[in-house]
Parts: sequence; C-alpha cells; structure tokens
Amino acid sequence: MKVCVIGATGHINYVINGLKMVRQARLVGAAPGSPGESVEKVLMSATRQGVADELRLYGDYRDMLDQVKPDVVAIACHFGDHAKVAAEVLRRGIHLFIEKPLATTLEDLYAMRELHARFGVQLSAMFGIRYTAPFLTAWQAVQEGAVGDIRLMHAQKSYKLGTRGPSFHRRETYGGTIPWVGIHAIDWLRWFSGGTFETVYASHSTRSNRGHGELETTAACHFTMSNDVMATVSIDYLRPEHADSHGDDRIRIAGSEGVLEVVGGRVWLTNGEQSGTRELPLLPEEEIFADFIRQIRSGAAGRVSAEDAFLSTEACLMARQSADERRLVHFSERMI
Amino acid sequence: MKVCVIGATGHINYVINGLKMVRQARLVGAAPGSPGESVEKVLMSATRQGVADELRLYGDYRDMLDQVKPDVVAIACHFGDHAKVAAEVLRRGIHLFIEKPLATTLEDLYAMRELHARFGVQLSAMFGIRYTAPFLTAWQAVQEGAVGDIRLMHAQKSYKLGTRGPSFHRRETYGGTIPWVGIHAIDWLRWFSGGTFETVYASHSTRSNRGHGELETTAACHFTMSNDVMATVSIDYLRPEHADSHGDDRIRIAGSEGVLEVVGGRVWLTNGEQSGTRELPLLPEEEIFADFIRQIRSGAAGRVSAEDAFLSTEACLMARQSADERRLVHFSERMI
Repeated sequence: MKVCVIGATGHINYVINGLKMVRQARLVGAAPGSPGESVEKVLMSATRQGVADELRLYGDYRDMLDQVKPDVVAIACHFGDHAKVAAEVLRRGIHLFIEKPLATTLEDLYAMRELHARFGVQLSAMFGIRYTAPFLTAWQAVQEGAVGDIRLMHAQKSYKLGTRGPSFHRRETYGGTIPWVGIHAIDWLRWFSGGTFETVYASHSTRSNRGHGELETTAACHFTMSNDVMATVSIDYLRPEHADSHGDDRIRIAGSEGVLEVVGGRVWLTNGEQSGTRELPLLPEEEIFADFIRQIRSGAAGRVSAEDAFLSTEACLMARQSADERRLVHFSERMI
Repeated sequence: MKVCVIGATGHINYVINGLKMVRQARLVGAAPGSPGESVEKVLMSATRQGVADELRLYGDYRDMLDQVKPDVVAIACHFGDHAKVAAEVLRRGIHLFIEKPLATTLEDLYAMRELHARFGVQLSAMFGIRYTAPFLTAWQAVQEGAVGDIRLMHAQKSYKLGTRGPSFHRRETYGGTIPWVGIHAIDWLRWFSGGTFETVYASHSTRSNRGHGELETTAACHFTMSNDVMATVSIDYLRPEHADSHGDDRIRIAGSEGVLEVVGGRVWLTNGEQSGTRELPLLPEEEIFADFIRQIRSGAAGRVSAEDAFLSTEACLMARQSADERRLVHFSERMI
C-alpha cells in the first residue's frame, strides 16, 4: 500500500508513527500543500523513524498524485487549504487521512462530504486524542456504564501559545481557535455521549494573543444535545510557558450513576457504593494511522468514522459562526 | 444588638457561628418564614452552640418584628418566600442578612432593591463560600495579579442530591437550581473579575432527578462579560452519595499571565517563570455573619455588598430565564 503525505503543518507524526507498525504500507511521496510549506521536516522525521527508504519529495502534490497513484494520502497543510487539497485526492479515488478541521468553511465541508460520498473511498481524520491511554480508558468505562446515563459534560483544551507561524495569524489560513483547538473537545462530546448536537452558543476573543493577529486566545462553547444533555467547552492558549506539559486536556462527565474525569493524563471515577473517588488503570494507547490502514484493509470500522470527521468539523464551524455572530445557532439551520 | 432569625431552611448556621464570635450581638427571636417550617432546629442548633440564652420562639414573624424590634434579621425560609419576608423587614428599617437568592423572580428582586434604597438599611446575603479558606486565598491571589488580566473562567457546583423536602420540588417555592446552587458560582465570576455581565445563555434539565418534581438536576451557563471576558458554569446534583464530600466546588481562572484553580478545597497556581504548578498556602477562613455585624457597627464595607447580592441574584434569574426560554438573554434587557 503506497502512502503519500501532503503538507507539513499538522500532525504528520501520526502517519510516521503508524507506518512503523504497519509494514504493509510504505511512505513513498511527500509534497507541500500550501504556499511556503517545506516538506524537508517530513523527510527528516521519516528518516529518523526509519520509514523514509522509498520516500521521494515532490514540488506539486497533483503531479505526485498522478505519478505515484498512491492508495492513501495524508493531508496536513495550512488548515484553510485542507478542503481544496482533499478535493484533488478524493476525485482521484484515493483513501484520505486528513488533519482536523476537515475544512474551514461549511461550504467547503459540505462539498467535501459530497465528493466523499460520490467516490466511496475511506476517510478518517486526525482526532488523535481518542487514541491516547486516558481518553480510551475513560471512553471504555463510560461505554460500560460507569456513569449511567450521561447528563452533563465539561471539556477543556488549554495550550501554550509559544510563537506560531504566519498561517496561524489569519482566519483565512488558520480557520480559528474553535476549529483548530476546540474541535478535539467538541469531538469528545459526540464520542462519549453518542448524541447529536441541537444548539450551540459560543464566544471567542483575540485579547492577550501576544501579536498573533486574528488568532483567538480564548473561546467557550455551550452545546445542547439530544436527550437533554448539555455540555460546556473551555478553550485557551493561556497555559503558561513554564507549565509542565504543552496541553491541559480534560473532560468531566456527570451521569445518573456517577462522575468520571480525565485530568493530567489520569482517569478518576466516582460512582456506585464505593466511597470516594478511585483512579482507573489505563488501557494501552493505540496508533491512529495504523487503525485507519487496518480499516482500509479489513473494512472493519476504525475509531474515527468519516461521519465523525464531518460532524465534529461541522459542529466546530457552527460554534465559530455563533461566536462571530454573537447568537445562538441551531443545528437545524444547517445547509444540507 | 438584637438579632432575630426568620425561617429554618437555608444556612442559619452562618448566623449561629457568627454569634459565637460577636458577643455584642444576641440571638433573641426565631420564627418560621414559610408554611410548614419549624424553628425547633434553630433552637436546637443555637442551644448546642451556646447562643440560645435569650432566644424566644414566635409563631408569626411579623409579631416578632413588632414586639422585639430587632436590629438585625436573618432570613432563611423557603426561597420563594424570601422577598415577601424581606419586604416586612426592610419596611421596618431593620438591617437584613438574607439567604441567596434574594428573590426568585426579577419583579420581586427589583421591588426589594427599591425598598432597600428607600429605607437605607444595611443588607448582605449568604454568599458564604467567599469566606472559606480556599476561595479567599484564590481571590486574594487574583487581586494581587497572580494571573494577570482575567480572560476566561469556568466554575463548577456539584452537590449530592440526597432526599430534599417538598419545597425543593416546585419551582414556585424552590426557584430553580441555577438560583439556588448555581448562584454561588455566578457570584464568583463577578467577585473574581470585578466585571459586569453582558449576555447569558443557559440550559437546564430535570432528568434523573429521582422523584424531585420540578427540581433541575443539571444546568450550564455561558456568560459574556465586560472586557471580552467569557465564563462557563457547570451545575449539578449528580455527585454520588458515597463521594467524600457533599459538594465539589471549583473555579478555574485563566489570565494573561497565569492560571489559578480551586479544586478539592486546595488552590493551585501556574504562572510566571516558575516551572510547573504550585499549591498556595491557605489564608484563614472568615465568618460571614460576623463580617456583616462588623459592617453595621463600623460602617466599613464587608465582603458581600448589597449591590453584590442584588447583581448576583439578578444574573442567576436572567440565566434561568435563558434556560426556560432557550434563548440568549442580554443584560441590557433588564427592566430597570
């Protein structure tokens, strides 16, 4: 199975780590997806990980697609270019592993969904946090009924800002902090509850962004979901530079029978007759790209379906719209 | 200074604990404020704490007010009766220490504010969590600049449901979970930031309330505030009965220079050049009712002003309105 990479901005490391585990797939090409991107770092990383033996770099990804005819393409260029590049991949009938958000406008997203349906290829997106040990453990416990019926959720994404390249400074190329950072937390809400979104109210602000142009430093979302479930999401780039990790990912899930939390990479459960709160032993982490390759080869569903990728992207774009327009957005307003 | 208590539903223990510290004030009368209330438990508690020497019980609080002519009255009856009882106290020119929410309708709240302004007495409300060691410590640190400019907040109130009396089962007597439980968290947002509310979107649900009628088990609020600050609030009665404390009060405050959190009665700060997160030593807790008595005696402002009490109650009633009507509420809609 021939794999190509387009872009060098998102989580290409997912692809390279996955390829180490799946020897039936080989990395054979890499090309930039957006102006100014260099795929040198893809080459360096692939070399370091020992998966660069057959890797060739291309200047134009369309030439690469036509010459190499890959089975699978991974896209991780500037977020505003995801949809345009994805269209070239999908039209050629190639399976697609794409960085989130799939698109930075709803129009582009719906066009991509149509193309995907028409060409019938496999598609998954880089919701890598689903595959980490604490989130997998928490999800498994919730599926097994650890909290009963989910009633209320709160999720948090907090990152260090550091110094981010110019593509993060403009809405057009960046897409916004709710779609780039918040989307993980929004995806968890769907993933854990299995519910659908009904309304979203969101807000965001560029204050204190230390010269990062249009990049929003803070955001908050409030979703109502099916079955009278509600959820809040807190998103920020305010994690101090000397904090002991880059990100501070959390979720708290309160249900009819208990409360479960992921915080600091650990999972805590309070429920039933047992007194106090106990820590759950972690399941092993999994490799997201290996899971996608397995899905293509066996046809058995992976952990992130195309529908997951579309719906979580849609939800974050509707949340961004709510924040931009300062109004409640109903998911029944969706265009298709 | 003569103190009377009306009602036996809310935090009368604040009054009794405070009286042990302030010997210039004496508890001289107690009466029910709502149908079916018994003030026997006020007597028992006052006796146990050694402040019942001069306490006399009355059947009708208006008779008590007219006969005893107290200097200060504490009201803690059914929440839906707070405003009616407060009107009798304020009209007699008596200082008022009142359980939150001050009123369960905006009409009653604005009428109380007018009466308070007209009679010029001192008024404070039972926002007792402001006086606890962790919240005082956190607030002091934030005032001293520990997080720089506040940009984003998330607050949590989570209680055990247990079995609650009939007055909690009906909106008319209970007022709602946002006004009864959420009001603390909503008050913290104003208290920590010093900002004003601009909009609120809220939702709530009675699902999984184990036979508690109209009592909402879950609620979430999303506030936008002055200076582009945003805040979410998570409120529930889903804390398992075997959890190691009744409540799980939390706040996370992210600012331009750091992040501060209160969780589990401890305070954590991440900021500046210091790496990792450090725990702050706790300031001593204070007594809320003793603070109010001091305010009356000296004229120096206590920690909870009348304006605090009115504005935090107003905010929770507007949040409840948002949840009831499923729409964004602008604080500019307020009636006066």
